[in-house]
Amino acid sequence: MTGLVLTQFDHPMEIQTVNVPIPGKGQVLVKIDSAPINPSDWAFVRGLYSSPKKPPVIAGFEGSGIVMATGNDFLSRRLLGKKVACFAPPNGNGTWASYCLTHYTTAIPLRKDLNLEQGSMLLVNPLSVMAMIQISQQRKIKAIANTAAASALGQLLDKLCTTNGMACVNIVRRPEQVEQLKKNGATYVIDSSSAHFKMEMRDLFHQLNVQLAFDAVGGPMATDLLEALPKGAEVMSYGALSEAAMSVHPGKLIFENKKVSGFWLSQWITQQSMFNLLRSFKKIQRFLSVEHPINIQKRMSLAETIAFIQTYPDSMSAGKMLVKPWQE
Amino acid sequence: MTGLVLTQFDHPMEIQTVNVPIPGKGQVLVKIDSAPINPSDWAFVRGLYSSPKKPPVIAGFEGSGIVMATGNDFLSRRLLGKKVACFAPPNGNGTWASYCLTHYTTAIPLRKDLNLEQGSMLLVNPLSVMAMIQISQQRKIKAIANTAAASALGQLLDKLCTTNGMACVNIVRRPEQVEQLKKNGATYVIDSSSAHFKMEMRDLFHQLNVQLAFDAVGGPMATDLLEALPKGAEVMSYGALSEAAMSVHPGKLIFENKKVSGFWLSQWITQQSMFNLLRSFKKIQRFLSVEHPINIQKRMSLAETIAFIQTYPDSMSAGKMLVKPWQE
Repeated sequence: MTGLVLTQFDHPMEIQTVNVPIPGKGQVLVKIDSAPINPSDWAFVRGLYSSPKKPPVIAGFEGSGIVMATGNDFLSRRLLGKKVACFAPPNGNGTWASYCLTHYTTAIPLRKDLNLEQGSMLLVNPLSVMAMIQISQQRKIKAIANTAAASALGQLLDKLCTTNGMACVNIVRRPEQVEQLKKNGATYVIDSSSAHFKMEMRDLFHQLNVQLAFDAVGGPMATDLLEALPKGAEVMSYGALSEAAMSVHPGKLIFENKKVSGFWLSQWITQQSMFNLLRSFKKIQRFLSVEHPINIQKRMSLAETIAFIQTYPDSMSAGKMLVKPWQE
Repeated sequence: MTGLVLTQFDHPMEIQTVNVPIPGKGQVLVKIDSAPINPSDWAFVRGLYSSPKKPPVIAGFEGSGIVMATGNDFLSRRLLGKKVACFAPPNGNGTWASYCLTHYTTAIPLRKDLNLEQGSMLLVNPLSVMAMIQISQQRKIKAIANTAAASALGQLLDKLCTTNGMACVNIVRRPEQVEQLKKNGATYVIDSSSAHFKMEMRDLFHQLNVQLAFDAVGGPMATDLLEALPKGAEVMSYGALSEAAMSVHPGKLIFENKKVSGFWLSQWITQQSMFNLLRSFKKIQRFLSVEHPINIQKRMSLAETIAFIQTYPDSMSAGKMLVKPWQE
C-alpha cells in the first residue's frame, strides 16, 4: 500500500510504499475512499498541533472507506464490509493512505443515503460544530460569533445555529465571501477587510448580545473580537490560523468580566457519554445527507496533495479538498 | 471641610475647601480618621479604573471614622456615634477628606478591639482576599498563586490560605521580599527577578498542582504565569500594575485547556447575599484585630499625600500608606 508520510514537521511529505497492516483484536482495516484536509491536519504537518504522533508517520486525522478486514472479535466483526467514517488512531498512521488501521469505536457506519465523500468529513468538523452548539445551549446563549466563517465548519455552524434558533455572526476575510455566505442563507456576515469592520462588529455584537465568540484565527483578530464583545462575553479559541498570540488587557477581564478559553475536539470527546456521541453522529448524518452537503472544491491523488497542501491557507475557504488515495 | 480633589485624571490633586454635606434619608456622615491608598485608588487617579466617578471629585474608595450625623431614619440612626469602616458612594466624593457622606449599608460598625487605622483597611483588600478564598474553595482548588504577593492584600491572602488549608505560591519582585515574607510565615515565595524564576515557578506550580493564579500585574508577568501553570489552570486578573496587556497563544487555550478571566470586587459584591457579606466582615475583623494587623509604613496629611502618591508604585509593597485628613 502507499501512504503520504510526514518525515519531519514543516517539510514536504513523501509517498512511501509500506505493508498493509493486519488488524489485531478490536481493530478494523479501512480501505480509504476519501480523506479531507482539515485545519488541524495543516497544523499537524506544520508541527503546531498537540499530538502524540511524531514523524515519520502517515498524516490525515479522518476519512471514509470500506472495512476490508477486522480483528475477528465480536465487536469489530460486525463492521466487515461496511461503509464507515473513521478517525485515525491517536498514535499511529493516518488516513492519507490506501488503507488505515483503527479501533472499531472510531469507525462509524454510514447511512445508506450518505456517500463516502460526504461521509469522509463526518467527524472533525461536524462534531466540532455539534459541540459548539451544545456548549452554547448549556449556557442558554442565543447569539454566537465565528471567525473563519467561510470554512466548511463555519458554514455548517451557521446552518445548525439557524436550525437551533440561534443567531450566528459570521466573520469572513473578503467581500466576495459575504455574497457567497448570504447566498447560502446566512443572515449576519461581516467582512474583516472592510474599513468599518471593528465598528460593524461591535454594533452587531451588542445588538444581538453575542456572549460567545468562537475564534479560529488568534492574533489581532482575536484581540479585536474580545474588544468588540459586550460585557460578560467569552472568546473561545479553537484554531490559530494566524499562528499568532492575542493580546488581552487586564481591564477587559476585570471591569468587563470577559473571559478567554479554548475548545479542543479531542478533549471534548473524552468528556461525552457514548450515548451523546452516537446521538450526535446520527444528527450529523441526517443533516448532511438530506439537505446540506459540504462543498468539495478539489479531489487529489497522493502526489497532487504533496504540492497542493502548501497553498492550503489561501484556498481553504473555497470548499473542501479531498485526498483520494486510489486516484492516479 | 477640606478634601483632596482630583480635578482631572493623571494630574496632581488639589486641596479644596467645600461645605460639609448634610445626610439625606439612609445616609450617614463619617468624620474620617484614616483612609488607605489602595492599588484601585492609584488606578482611579490615573484614569485607569472603571467607575462612574468623573473629575472633579474627592478621591479615596474606603476609610474609617466616626458617624457624626445621619438621615435620622430608622436604619441610619442606629449608627450615630459609632466607629465604622466605610466605602465611599459609587458616584460621589471619596474618603480622602475631613468628612465623607455615604449610605448606611456601606458603613460597617467596627469591633471594639479593632482600632480606626486597621479598620480603615477593612473593606477593599480583606474582602478581595475573602472572595479569592471563596472562589478557590467553590472549585475545590487546593493550591493557588498570587503575583504582587508583598502587598497588604498578598500577605493577607497567604495567611488566610494557611488558615483554610490551602497552599499559596507568593510571587514577589525583589530578593529582600522573599526574606520578609518567609519571616512572616509564608511557605512558598519566589522572586521574579531571579535568573531561574520561570523554571522555579513552573516546577512549583506543577508540584503543588496550582489551578488558579491571581494576577495583579498583567503584561509579561501574566503571560509567564499562564505559560507556567499546569493543564486546565486559570489566570484570574485583578489588577494591571504593569499597565500592559498579556499575550495569550491559542495553543495554551486549546491544547492545555487554560483559561483567562478577571476578578472585580465591585462586581463580586453585587453577586453575594447580605448574609455572606456580613459573615465575611465578621471573619475579617476577628482575623485582623486579634493576630494579623496590617503593616502601616506611613501616615500622611492631605498635603503630603499629593506629593507622595506619585511614588506609590515603587513603595506600595513596603506597607500601607494612610491618608489622615485631620493631620497637619
